[in-house]
Amino acid sequence: MMQKFVSSFVRNFGARGFLLLFLFALLTPKSTGAQQPPLNLMPMPANVQAGPGSLSIESGFSVALTGYTEPRLDRGVERFLGQLKRQTALLVNLKPAKSAQATLVIHTDHPSKEVQEVGEDESYTLEVTSAGAKLTAPTPLGTLHGLQTFLQLVDISSDGFAVPAVNIQDKPRFPWRGLLIDSARHFTPLEVIRRNLDGMEAVKLNVFHWHLTDNQGFRVESKKFPKLHESGSNGQYYTQEEIRDVIAYARDRGIRVVPEFEMPGHSTAIFVGYPEIASTPGPFKIDEEWGVMDPAIDPTKEQTYKFLDQLIGEMARLFPDRYFHIGGDEVNGKAWDSNPKIQEFKKAHGYKSNEDLQAYFSQRVQKLVAKHGKAAIGWDEIFVPGAPKDIVIHSWRGPDSLAAAAKQGYRGILSNGYYIDLMWSAARHYAVDPLKSAAADLTPEQKQLVLGGEATMWSEYVNWENIDSRIWPRTAAIAERLWSPQSVTDVNSMYARLEVISQRLEWLGLTHRSQYRKMLQRIAGPATPEEFAALKTLTDVLEPVKDYTRGESTSWKAIATSPLNHVVDAVPPESDAGRRFGELVDKFVSASCQDGDTQVRLRAQFLAWRDNDAKLQPLAQRSFLVREAAERSQDLSALATAGIAALDAIAKRQPQPDNWKAQQLAIVEQAKKPKAQLLLIPTQAVQKLVEAASAGGACTDAK
Amino acid sequence: MMQKFVSSFVRNFGARGFLLLFLFALLTPKSTGAQQPPLNLMPMPANVQAGPGSLSIESGFSVALTGYTEPRLDRGVERFLGQLKRQTALLVNLKPAKSAQATLVIHTDHPSKEVQEVGEDESYTLEVTSAGAKLTAPTPLGTLHGLQTFLQLVDISSDGFAVPAVNIQDKPRFPWRGLLIDSARHFTPLEVIRRNLDGMEAVKLNVFHWHLTDNQGFRVESKKFPKLHESGSNGQYYTQEEIRDVIAYARDRGIRVVPEFEMPGHSTAIFVGYPEIASTPGPFKIDEEWGVMDPAIDPTKEQTYKFLDQLIGEMARLFPDRYFHIGGDEVNGKAWDSNPKIQEFKKAHGYKSNEDLQAYFSQRVQKLVAKHGKAAIGWDEIFVPGAPKDIVIHSWRGPDSLAAAAKQGYRGILSNGYYIDLMWSAARHYAVDPLKSAAADLTPEQKQLVLGGEATMWSEYVNWENIDSRIWPRTAAIAERLWSPQSVTDVNSMYARLEVISQRLEWLGLTHRSQYRKMLQRIAGPATPEEFAALKTLTDVLEPVKDYTRGESTSWKAIATSPLNHVVDAVPPESDAGRRFGELVDKFVSASCQDGDTQVRLRAQFLAWRDNDAKLQPLAQRSFLVREAAERSQDLSALATAGIAALDAIAKRQPQPDNWKAQQLAIVEQAKKPKAQLLLIPTQAVQKLVEAASAGGACTDAK
Repeated sequence: MMQKFVSSFVRNFGARGFLLLFLFALLTPKSTGAQQPPLNLMPMPANVQAGPGSLSIESGFSVALTGYTEPRLDRGVERFLGQLKRQTALLVNLKPAKSAQATLVIHTDHPSKEVQEVGEDESYTLEVTSAGAKLTAPTPLGTLHGLQTFLQLVDISSDGFAVPAVNIQDKPRFPWRGLLIDSARHFTPLEVIRRNLDGMEAVKLNVFHWHLTDNQGFRVESKKFPKLHESGSNGQYYTQEEIRDVIAYARDRGIRVVPEFEMPGHSTAIFVGYPEIASTPGPFKIDEEWGVMDPAIDPTKEQTYKFLDQLIGEMARLFPDRYFHIGGDEVNGKAWDSNPKIQEFKKAHGYKSNEDLQAYFSQRVQKLVAKHGKAAIGWDEIFVPGAPKDIVIHSWRGPDSLAAAAKQGYRGILSNGYYIDLMWSAARHYAVDPLKSAAADLTPEQKQLVLGGEATMWSEYVNWENIDSRIWPRTAAIAERLWSPQSVTDVNSMYARLEVISQRLEWLGLTHRSQYRKMLQRIAGPATPEEFAALKTLTDVLEPVKDYTRGESTSWKAIATSPLNHVVDAVPPESDAGRRFGELVDKFVSASCQDGDTQVRLRAQFLAWRDNDAKLQPLAQRSFLVREAAERSQDLSALATAGIAALDAIAKRQPQPDNWKAQQLAIVEQAKKPKAQLLLIPTQAVQKLVEAASAGGACTDAK
Repeated sequence: MMQKFVSSFVRNFGARGFLLLFLFALLTPKSTGAQQPPLNLMPMPANVQAGPGSLSIESGFSVALTGYTEPRLDRGVERFLGQLKRQTALLVNLKPAKSAQATLVIHTDHPSKEVQEVGEDESYTLEVTSAGAKLTAPTPLGTLHGLQTFLQLVDISSDGFAVPAVNIQDKPRFPWRGLLIDSARHFTPLEVIRRNLDGMEAVKLNVFHWHLTDNQGFRVESKKFPKLHESGSNGQYYTQEEIRDVIAYARDRGIRVVPEFEMPGHSTAIFVGYPEIASTPGPFKIDEEWGVMDPAIDPTKEQTYKFLDQLIGEMARLFPDRYFHIGGDEVNGKAWDSNPKIQEFKKAHGYKSNEDLQAYFSQRVQKLVAKHGKAAIGWDEIFVPGAPKDIVIHSWRGPDSLAAAAKQGYRGILSNGYYIDLMWSAARHYAVDPLKSAAADLTPEQKQLVLGGEATMWSEYVNWENIDSRIWPRTAAIAERLWSPQSVTDVNSMYARLEVISQRLEWLGLTHRSQYRKMLQRIAGPATPEEFAALKTLTDVLEPVKDYTRGESTSWKAIATSPLNHVVDAVPPESDAGRRFGELVDKFVSASCQDGDTQVRLRAQFLAWRDNDAKLQPLAQRSFLVREAAERSQDLSALATAGIAALDAIAKRQPQPDNWKAQQLAIVEQAKKPKAQLLLIPTQAVQKLVEAASAGGACTDAK
């Protein structure tokens, strides 16, 4: 039976000047009378209109390709059906159907570019009724995106699997939506690259920025300069054939591959094999530590540019993308300062600073990149006077830097605010917008020069095992920021959808959730179910320290030789349990601390935390890795005791003496201190309760 | 500091006439004063002697191969180090060390056979002290086994990763320790085969019995008869190259591959392409249902034997193993009865029964197998008068059948009791011994003819997704039965070690635990953490129905076309939570129902179960797959209420009226009924409490 469309609301998005309809219909599904859940789409499409009823997904489900077709689309459909099978376990039809009978009819208009370009049409339209679905797109890029949207719409219902009737018109806000993976500091196995490309496809990211060289490794086979990978990688590098496979794999998913070859800093791994282009005498060995290193390319030697000409030429042929990333960041100048010849060169050329010298180097390298048919992209530092207009500024500095470049007609992308290695919350990344602050005041034409952004997965403390949990699900929130209209900013909605997407990413083969459990099993060793549960109760409310805290502490510098098997390596960057508990406390406080049910839930959680430490003790005695977190367990116990005291005090509705408050806050402060590079998350929530209690239970919105 | 050896005990195993030392030392580890945990080895070695101290496993860990070496050993060591890295996340040395400096020195005496044979020497000795480890073995087979034992010994300690000092002399009780995987009813992807071979290696199984053909599919490429795989497999078959890869993969792990080609029954898939050798007229199509099918090969035509001669010849060349499995089971005779020519043939040859006719067929096929240089193995039915002495009887009938064959000088292996598709508990399989019942009375020489056994993974309700959870961890218990001394029978010890091994098997890539969670996520759809927890609380105490109950019920017969996405497909064959709860109740009852702590734990569990149904309801309304189990949820709630009533009554220490008991037992009986092919496990435990309560709390050992 068809259902009636009940409610809708409309939003007006000024930025792009078009009207967006967001129609979260409240429908009455067939059998239960319950509310229809919201659509779990991420990124949220530009325009969604819910219709009546839903399309059943059954074993007979089939797909037809019409209009323009190509093998990539066939493979895309095959992948789509494979994923549909995984999501539902239905035995769906693997053979393409004739269009009239197909459940999903796809129409693609014309091919996309042979080498994917920035700003190609990625739009699509998806129309689903209870009778069937139609996906239309100008190019295969839109078709691929539309298939992902369809997969996100498939859900279980009271009758079977189904897609709600919906009409979606969608296109991205920014044309450059990337993920950087640093395969230099820790090598990324191909299997890990591939599953992350799958994840990128699922959330419509379209640039894989491959950070291939750094002080800790040169990860590409070079036939011109074989000592680059032979001496500079400890045997962990990608052959050119493997690179080509990854590029093809990415192209199949509508993803460009932009390689990065860091210079003139971040180059120690080059010097191991080719010390002659370094600014200081060798021999060199691969760096194994955290931090900014001194070695730098000698920008004064002609030999340097001969070398780079050949290397860039070889790599420009290997990577078909129009853009070639030349790095450029974090040259501390020490190597140049210590070399008298370089000092002479600076004087002779009238360069006052090392920045001037780097600008000279940048100009020359940009010419080499242009010579080999590419446009250069590089970190803020490459934005030097006289740079060609086709370069792209990759900003670690922020939107103001992009705005300054745009005013001079230069294009840019943002990574400042998207450094996912800093362990920020999804909400914090989500709030970062490439067109905020100074960029907000650009003219519409200048705004077009801000191409988008990239999440950056620097890998100092990241390997095959925990890289997924550092990238996902937070990167899906960044993907939404770069795809969806600027006005899509509801954090609660984001988190609700992120939870669903996160689970689905695991179905694709990503391991951000499952590996957490396995790492905890390693940390625990043989444990009773109760002991293991106690460990997980603790670690579920821990997060790694933020920003560069870990790298800056002396005992954690040996990034290449230290095992990543600690609790800090296992816990996700953002504690879901901690966030939810914080929301519960906010709810309680903002409702004048009078909701009895919430009070009971808070108390039950505090009791569990308080008693958890005793349960964890036997394990902490047996396992050195559990013991590292034992103090955090005691802190959690103490924090919970303070929380119970606060609830008790609130119940009395009488102001508490100052020393009571000071006592409780001292416990909170103690719990706030990082230990074993771990933060205990519920501190803020307990502090709110203590403050509410000390004010005599006079609770107000403490947000 | 060296630790002192404290205690030991000695067991005498008569069967093989050698003295076995089981020394579970109670050592005082360095820092904590706690008891040293028992060794988590499975299968338990023939002879274990604990020593003082332990060997630290650190980043510098290295391995040296001495004595006889071959590439298989190099690869074995590489795999070993890879696994060690996964277990510890240490950056262990990947290059072989010189023997003097290596942490683990391996000495292999001489090569094993080029094609692995039944009964080759698989023994090894492993000596670990705090200074290093030494593994010695006559052949690579023993070396490979010893490496697995070492990996099982690596554990986390209060100081780091370590292997306890130990002296192990080990060899298998039986030379044939197999796992059958039925790739016919549901195709098994190669990746699944490979990870299960990894699992087999971990628990020292040495025969992969590959059930490749059946009514539902012919899964091998045949170059002689291409219509076999083209028409008989729905496109899901293994190429000969893939088969060779699997054989090499297995050989690397000390595992033989025995192929099975079912005949004269279980052959419908053959007839789709080659109806001319069937007993009834075609056309045929691949069977899609559960059960014993009528079609059978026509044993009276000479054409049949010409066909089989060529097919067996081709497959005998493809599979190097000495043994060739010819099936032989479950011919219902209907196809023969309906064919007048076959009836004439029977008369002409004086065959009184279809069994006689099958014996004739078996004799001829066994001759063909011999002609192609192989020995036949087949189900009980192939044991016919005049069978060559080198055949192996594969018994689905039981040890008595093996004993009867052994008395006539025939060899056999047992699968009766090891049918893991029947969803029995690990304990039940563990109790099955090939040398029990009639076989126990055989002479020592006759006992030698009982070669071992095989777990059989028939795949009616098993696909890529849940096959691991049907095989593991229970097959590890069967592996122990076939490897370890007959006297190793302590079920509690088995379960304790099984829990640890189960976790480690996931580290190898098996998915028996992680996929359960993913399947529940599919069943739930988008759910709050509380809703998902409620679903898992329920499913954790459910088991699939046993034996052939599911296949015999009309609505579950379509094995090839029904999705395996139900709760019954997701839940493990054995409920750990249910078993543990049963143990807790036994403990409570056998301690006169007076242990207050246990009483509190039981009550808390009952309360959680009682209230779980309400939490699950919203999900049951949204998801049709949750709804299937909704009645079980209500039953659990009712059962918990009865449990609470029993605890209350016990506390009163007064006999309860008869109608009270009847009322409670009615609830229990209701809960015992299978629904949605699911059993609710804690029924027995609640019944014990009700009986104890009705007897006025006069609790005794109710086991």
